[in-house]
Amino acid sequence: MTSGHLSERRSVKPGSQASLRRSNQQRIVRSLLQSGSLTQAELSRQTGLSTATVSNIVKAMVDRGLLATSPTTSSGRRALAVSLTGDDTLAAGIDIGRSHVRVVVTSINYRVVGERWVHLPLGHEADLALDVASTVLDEVLAECGSSRDALIGVGLGVPGPIDRRSHAVIDGTILPEWVGITVDHIQERLRMPVMLENDANLGAIAEITWGPHKGVDDLVFVKVGTGIGSGLILGGEIFPGNIGVSGEIGHLPIHEHGLICRCGNRGCLETVASTAIMIELLSREPQNVRTTSDIIALAQAGDKATLHVIDDAGRALGRALAAIANLVNPQMLVLGGPLAGLGEILLEPVRKGFVRYSSPVVHDSTELTMSSFTDRAEALGGAAIVIQEFEAVGFET
Amino acid sequence: MTSGHLSERRSVKPGSQASLRRSNQQRIVRSLLQSGSLTQAELSRQTGLSTATVSNIVKAMVDRGLLATSPTTSSGRRALAVSLTGDDTLAAGIDIGRSHVRVVVTSINYRVVGERWVHLPLGHEADLALDVASTVLDEVLAECGSSRDALIGVGLGVPGPIDRRSHAVIDGTILPEWVGITVDHIQERLRMPVMLENDANLGAIAEITWGPHKGVDDLVFVKVGTGIGSGLILGGEIFPGNIGVSGEIGHLPIHEHGLICRCGNRGCLETVASTAIMIELLSREPQNVRTTSDIIALAQAGDKATLHVIDDAGRALGRALAAIANLVNPQMLVLGGPLAGLGEILLEPVRKGFVRYSSPVVHDSTELTMSSFTDRAEALGGAAIVIQEFEAVGFET
Repeated sequence: MTSGHLSERRSVKPGSQASLRRSNQQRIVRSLLQSGSLTQAELSRQTGLSTATVSNIVKAMVDRGLLATSPTTSSGRRALAVSLTGDDTLAAGIDIGRSHVRVVVTSINYRVVGERWVHLPLGHEADLALDVASTVLDEVLAECGSSRDALIGVGLGVPGPIDRRSHAVIDGTILPEWVGITVDHIQERLRMPVMLENDANLGAIAEITWGPHKGVDDLVFVKVGTGIGSGLILGGEIFPGNIGVSGEIGHLPIHEHGLICRCGNRGCLETVASTAIMIELLSREPQNVRTTSDIIALAQAGDKATLHVIDDAGRALGRALAAIANLVNPQMLVLGGPLAGLGEILLEPVRKGFVRYSSPVVHDSTELTMSSFTDRAEALGGAAIVIQEFEAVGFET
Repeated sequence: MTSGHLSERRSVKPGSQASLRRSNQQRIVRSLLQSGSLTQAELSRQTGLSTATVSNIVKAMVDRGLLATSPTTSSGRRALAVSLTGDDTLAAGIDIGRSHVRVVVTSINYRVVGERWVHLPLGHEADLALDVASTVLDEVLAECGSSRDALIGVGLGVPGPIDRRSHAVIDGTILPEWVGITVDHIQERLRMPVMLENDANLGAIAEITWGPHKGVDDLVFVKVGTGIGSGLILGGEIFPGNIGVSGEIGHLPIHEHGLICRCGNRGCLETVASTAIMIELLSREPQNVRTTSDIIALAQAGDKATLHVIDDAGRALGRALAAIANLVNPQMLVLGGPLAGLGEILLEPVRKGFVRYSSPVVHDSTELTMSSFTDRAEALGGAAIVIQEFEAVGFET
């Protein structure tokens, strides 16, 4: 299977014919995921769609190998039973970081069947990361006794904004080597249909798909790493914004006379609360911090300087979360990224900043929590968007 | 007609049976608004819904007096032509301000048929405003040769947050006399089905329904008045947030050591850019400002102090707009409220603040403009949500 169609999702206008078709197919696939096998008449009753609509969509999906039909009888008459093709159909999520790639493989029923994390050199070229990802993907598939033939697609997350007009990574990413890389290029390199997405958006999708917050409609996932970004789930779906760059909170002004930020402004959230600045602040003796793991170890050992840096970062994050919550009033705010393991040590100052700067009715009604996936959320989210796209439109073969 | 059902909208879960029903009915009403009169078979073909689904919805809506059927022939067979009942069906929008009430009456085809603005005393009780609104509504209806019998409902806007759990105005409004007023109370007082909504949300709806931005999917309307709030249109609809209080940007921190705000924090946007603070700053000799009209007159005459106050307010507003745009990446930002008449005098400093604090790809792709409705947007939006709710679910009679 090869296709560029995956990247076209969400460009359909609400209310258009394309949007109706998409919604109709989604009704059918969801019914089949719930019930296993149904006759066309049963599908029509369950979905409220006409038999003609059901029959057209089933035929198109059978032609593409996505649905299978078999003869059966219903109320004594001959009928066709419709089902999804095979439980071995798989989806993959790939998360690219500054110094790692993670691959997750799942069934289209959302069961994780394989997973691997590998180190990448700092400042790696995009093609190196993609080649490593491709090899690891094959290995993980082989381990679970499968192959690419069973894979419907890959959801790939990058820590930076994706312009959905050009389907490319654009300026603002913490991986400058990836600027200009398009989904078409990634598809060629991986030899698979690919959906390209911002990593924080994938983290957000993972939280409502796999996590304890399954089914939450309005959730914001804030990823604190070398950069700081967020993914917005509004009405149960990623909200991409006009050109796909929603959730950019790393450059919210915090200190009027603060440090100069990589964006050119002063005192942005990233100059106070990114892991990069925290590592830099704690890099001298005696803390000698080099990695986020060092920060976690020192904090857990009660090192005062480390706790102060975390306190400042946490309050600034809380203030940014308040700005988010006052604006979009989500049900839940989830903090993710490598520092999620700090738990209450980070959450306490975050909560203080959040309560101070959010309106009372907002902080009383918003749940604030740490991600339970730590750094797995992004790859899991990658697999989830592929499955959800399959439910909505199937894949071109 | 009396009902509390209007206020229940958007509480349906996506994917639920109620949500399917809602979406099916919307398909049918939109087809009828486009085509005028259709047979049930034609409705089925246009909407993709089964004839059984179409027939059930049509029957329920005929029972409620919302649709009419008449015998016709189609391909030589007898059939039923379905149409919306009467062009004289009307909707009303009411905008409550600190010192005014505005009533707009429109047809359900979005044609404005009557409108009136009346003054209210500062610090008015909610019931006084509602009684005035009720009388004015009757007068406007009489002027256009109609009456309440033709009215399907009222959309009422209040400058403050509405908690959609209690359907009540809550703390944070600039009208303290309205805190705790519920939609049920308003319905009793107006003797009409009412949808209660935040005024900035209604302004946003007006922009995409009646204005030059008709059909824009992602738009944020920022209302600058005694308070500052915003309405979010995401995916073509008001985005209410978890409990209905989205868009609260008035308390975004601007100056760390600024004035104490009515919310208890320091240096909030409202302490720099609300019309209340601008009037206060310019209240002494020689400006002697008492109203927003005074500000507009002085600015247009080139008064330096007035222009400085506008410049500071504008830059702070621009910074807040940047925070909004970086987060939700809308297609369009619209500034409304009584200062919209300032045009370029206000827009220029707003643009400067916006460009400075938004990420380059966001400010290059976001349109920033003044509302063309000045202070009519909120009432127009009130009528629009009533019509849209009618399209989606009809009204209980």
